[in-house]
Amino acid sequence: VRPPAGCDLVLTQDTLVAGVHFRERDPPRLIARKALRVNLSDLAAKGGEPLCYLLSLGIAPAMTGAWAEEFVAGLAEDQATYGMTLLGGDTVLCEDRAVITVTVCGTVPSGAMVRRAGARPGDRVYVSGTIGDGALGLRLLRDEAGASFELLAESEREHLRRRYLLPEPRTSLAAALRAHASAAMDVSDGLVGDLSLLLEASGCSARIEAARVPLSPAAARLVPRPELFEAALTGGDDYEILCTVAPREAAALTAAAQAAGVALTEIGEVVQGRGPAVVFGADGAPMSFAQGSYAHF
Amino acid sequence: VRPPAGCDLVLTQDTLVAGVHFRERDPPRLIARKALRVNLSDLAAKGGEPLCYLLSLGIAPAMTGAWAEEFVAGLAEDQATYGMTLLGGDTVLCEDRAVITVTVCGTVPSGAMVRRAGARPGDRVYVSGTIGDGALGLRLLRDEAGASFELLAESEREHLRRRYLLPEPRTSLAAALRAHASAAMDVSDGLVGDLSLLLEASGCSARIEAARVPLSPAAARLVPRPELFEAALTGGDDYEILCTVAPREAAALTAAAQAAGVALTEIGEVVQGRGPAVVFGADGAPMSFAQGSYAHF
Repeated sequence: VRPPAGCDLVLTQDTLVAGVHFRERDPPRLIARKALRVNLSDLAAKGGEPLCYLLSLGIAPAMTGAWAEEFVAGLAEDQATYGMTLLGGDTVLCEDRAVITVTVCGTVPSGAMVRRAGARPGDRVYVSGTIGDGALGLRLLRDEAGASFELLAESEREHLRRRYLLPEPRTSLAAALRAHASAAMDVSDGLVGDLSLLLEASGCSARIEAARVPLSPAAARLVPRPELFEAALTGGDDYEILCTVAPREAAALTAAAQAAGVALTEIGEVVQGRGPAVVFGADGAPMSFAQGSYAHF
Repeated sequence: VRPPAGCDLVLTQDTLVAGVHFRERDPPRLIARKALRVNLSDLAAKGGEPLCYLLSLGIAPAMTGAWAEEFVAGLAEDQATYGMTLLGGDTVLCEDRAVITVTVCGTVPSGAMVRRAGARPGDRVYVSGTIGDGALGLRLLRDEAGASFELLAESEREHLRRRYLLPEPRTSLAAALRAHASAAMDVSDGLVGDLSLLLEASGCSARIEAARVPLSPAAARLVPRPELFEAALTGGDDYEILCTVAPREAAALTAAAQAAGVALTEIGEVVQGRGPAVVFGADGAPMSFAQGSYAHF
């Protein structure tokens, strides 16, 4: 790999495990695209532009025929969409369950990578798109007949399923983040927990207003149930951008995001102090969560 | 990652699966070092110098305590040995068996990466170190009481076990390969099969003399048994360098290897034509193999 003149490379590596990050029976074409996209989401949050990738595919013998053909078709589709080439990698036998690791290599102008550690007290906190759809989509896929989901129209169900199965990485925000954000990361393990990681890296805290967290119409129907609101704020699978921005840069950031076609919503403010974000509910009281984010262990 | 001025980056990615590439009960410190070293072996074969790496660790909950501490200690040890830093990666739950993917990022002077496709008829074929120890070491670990191994002294057994558990990547050969080799790759899936991949990429064939393939004293005791000679030539886990070199460069290559402290042995010649390498036995007749290399599927 020869980086373009004046550019650094940004490397991201994310692993998807069958039964954890996708379901064995999910369409292989979507599994392939999700494996690329979770990395592209990380890359976008760092201000990087896609260049190429490596794939390590651990699959069972039963997956070598039509499954693999569909998987490869999914890779080809998103390679074209995001302008990436496959450099190489590994293909191994992984009898019990598929394990897929993708390493994406992207470019940023030298020194321009956006880090987690740049947030400062007074900065505003923004998220892209809508939060909670992926986590709610997974719950729906696991319990289609559940009473919680009776309120949803079929188009809303399909929206939530789709958001779980195929993330939309916010690649078009990369340049705006490089130009204006003080810190950024993608939301993959839950908004509350991921924000706390950013704050920890930056040595600050934050005050978030739950009512300002952007929701899709489908998610908005579900969050009056407290357990589903908590799932939306902490469940993960969002693949949205979480960023902080100094007040003087806020208008430029939101204008750039609008020009890039991605909604960006202010949800709170960085404050002095250390510790996880405090999320204020509609009643003005701090909310508490059983678990701030998806935890593997 | 900012590559040094005048350098390209070389990325390698290899996955180790418990029960396939290592045994669950192998010391975690050695598993960690093997995960790095199989990549460093690939990198050395491309003429690259180690820079940094990414780690995706899929482990079961039971592996989070002392197991993980030993694993991390192994990483730290080889980071120091090879001058690499850990950039990032992923840690995921992988209930059934550990799956470990490492991506190593190395540097080469721009345009100097050694490829598989450069072999030409008349080039000589060399391998580093000794061949077959890893494959024989795995067989020994699986069958310590086996009649095949009765001939071995304990020091020879320990040599074979060690060669399986902890590869020695030939990083010190990288500069010599860049300067003199026409093509190279590492031997990880078996000498015969890996050579055939190199020849396929180069559009040539080769004639190899089995009697010239370098063997350790332990392996030399075992190969009079035909099935163990075949295991040595096709079993993999060698992590040695296989390379081709034009006749006029051969003396310079072997001198550079000697200066680097790595034995390099000529085993045959690249010839015109297409197809896998032909390996001639001690009787002068071509040998045939049940399987040219380790196959996952």
